[in-house]
Amino acid sequence: MPQTCLSIRRVLAIQVSVVGSGSEHEERAEAVGRLLAERGATVITGGRGEVMAAAARGAKSAGGTTIGILPTETRDGLNEWIDHVVVTGIGHARNLAVVASGDAVIAVGGRYGTLAEIGFALTLGRTVVVLEPGWEVEGTQRAQTPEEAVEFAFAAARHTPVT
Amino acid sequence: MPQTCLSIRRVLAIQVSVVGSGSEHEERAEAVGRLLAERGATVITGGRGEVMAAAARGAKSAGGTTIGILPTETRDGLNEWIDHVVVTGIGHARNLAVVASGDAVIAVGGRYGTLAEIGFALTLGRTVVVLEPGWEVEGTQRAQTPEEAVEFAFAAARHTPVT
Amino acid sequence: MPQTCLSIRRVLAIQVSVVGSGSEHEERAEAVGRLLAERGATVITGGRGEVMAAAARGAKSAGGTTIGILPTETRDGLNEWIDHVVVTGIGHARNLAVVASGDAVIAVGGRYGTLAEIGFALTLGRTVVVLEPGWEVEGTQRAQTPEEAVEFAFAAARHTPVT
Amino acid sequence: MPQTCLSIRRVLAIQVSVVGSGSEHEERAEAVGRLLAERGATVITGGRGEVMAAAARGAKSAGGTTIGILPTETRDGLNEWIDHVVVTGIGHARNLAVVASGDAVIAVGGRYGTLAEIGFALTLGRTVVVLEPGWEVEGTQRAQTPEEAVEFAFAAARHTPVT
Repeated sequence: MPQTCLSIRRVLAIQVSVVGSGSEHEERAEAVGRLLAERGATVITGGRGEVMAAAARGAKSAGGTTIGILPTETRDGLNEWIDHVVVTGIGHARNLAVVASGDAVIAVGGRYGTLAEIGFALTLGRTVVVLEPGWEVEGTQRAQTPEEAVEFAFAAARHTPVT
Repeated sequence: MPQTCLSIRRVLAIQVSVVGSGSEHEERAEAVGRLLAERGATVITGGRGEVMAAAARGAKSAGGTTIGILPTETRDGLNEWIDHVVVTGIGHARNLAVVASGDAVIAVGGRYGTLAEIGFALTLGRTVVVLEPGWEVEGTQRAQTPEEAVEFAFAAARHTPVT
Repeated sequence: MPQTCLSIRRVLAIQVSVVGSGSEHEERAEAVGRLLAERGATVITGGRGEVMAAAARGAKSAGGTTIGILPTETRDGLNEWIDHVVVTGIGHARNLAVVASGDAVIAVGGRYGTLAEIGFALTLGRTVVVLEPGWEVEGTQRAQTPEEAVEFAFAAARHTPVT
Repeated sequence: MPQTCLSIRRVLAIQVSVVGSGSEHEERAEAVGRLLAERGATVITGGRGEVMAAAARGAKSAGGTTIGILPTETRDGLNEWIDHVVVTGIGHARNLAVVASGDAVIAVGGRYGTLAEIGFALTLGRTVVVLEPGWEVEGTQRAQTPEEAVEFAFAAARHTPVT
């Protein structure tokens, strides 16, 4: 009887990057993180405070996995809901790594650093979902609620997975 | 008679970064480069084609100096109007270096890479002048003509020099 | 009775970066990965082939967790034993992130990229354990066996944790 | 009569990167910078003190041109012999840009950051000349004097120009 040799490529969990800032957006960011984790996505963030911390906190509240990609050379400033920390040492250029690491990107609030992340994500062909209100950039998808943002991100991750 | 010892700090030329893309914007980018060089500024660009090449070409037509900051590990794709080439090897993250190196930044046209550059420049506190039409981002200055863009860039470089 | 409020900082797993290259070193790299995972460390690598793949494979064989930090803008070239992938887009500069992310670094074989990683790790004050034979660099610790390399890495991670 | 169409590619000056550190090496670094400038090379350095400053000072004493590629987000720490400053904002990862920008690299003294630069330069196929005494790395050329180091660098730049 011939042996069936199966080459099983282990499937990575879907990874969704959550970017943004602004303490007024933390509640919605936490909901985004929680919903992502409930559906099995790993949450990627910049590893620091406000929106980044809230998204990671939400993910952990649902038993999810979180990655924090820091700009610094040490772990200083890392929020406490990060499971795995990547210390890049490259300053704001780490924003490129944050968005490139996601199958899709969700932006919650945010200032100029977030704008750079949106620009990079669209440059790389990643789907960017902006949770309203937020930066209005042509080429982004607009979501009214955390649920909708997560739904769009998963749809994008399935249809145009990063390879 | 006491000797007066003067510590003369050599003054760098003003450096202005010109960012953007789109062949339809080349003529205005060339004017921007030429005007910057006529006023003694060194022109910093990403070193490649379209707006980047046009700005460097304009600067060279006025006898100026040009720096090209490439994303690649080689000089492949460098336009022919660059005097000094910086080969970064860091891909799109070189956009950070392009805008950080300017006392001010002028955006001419541009797509998502330019948006990332605007985001980074504003994050770092650099003045960003957008030559109309262009990305509409809160916090940028709007110029109607190449002359006005260059005027705004010089005013910013004088009032808030990078240190 | 006064309420005791404990602020419990969640403790990250120890993270150890394994760097190197050369197919002749894969067996020992796999042992290093396995031993790290058996002791609960997360294994950080550059995410690609040879030593990087072997270390991750070893870690997965022991049920461990693996992070791959890629130089590219996509997941192309990612080995199949990576749980969480960080796509940096910054080329060889990602070597800095690989070593900065570890509480300690173990080098197994390796060529010039590994030398850069050793240089960066020592610049940042990370302990570097070189599994013999390997680059001879002043300031590194030398291990004769995978067991010894892992022992040294854990000792370093405990005594001089990255903060 | 057939029209002769000449495609004249403007020729960049040869660029040589000088890396290293250590105040005891400044005199020799200054000689290297001077000799490079006398032969028309542009001197690329990391823009800061000790060997970097000395090489730039030497180049300026011979009327040469100097580029400083800083790790920071500002010009803070820039030495006063730099003509054109590139502010990268990417920390130690700027070492990659320093060596990638040279047709050849000369190392004078140096510690672990220099080792990372040697590793990156060799990874990219750049010729690395180590002025004795210095890091002993297989694949580097060894020079006994500044004259010899510069001679080797020019020979390499001519035979294997960066393209």
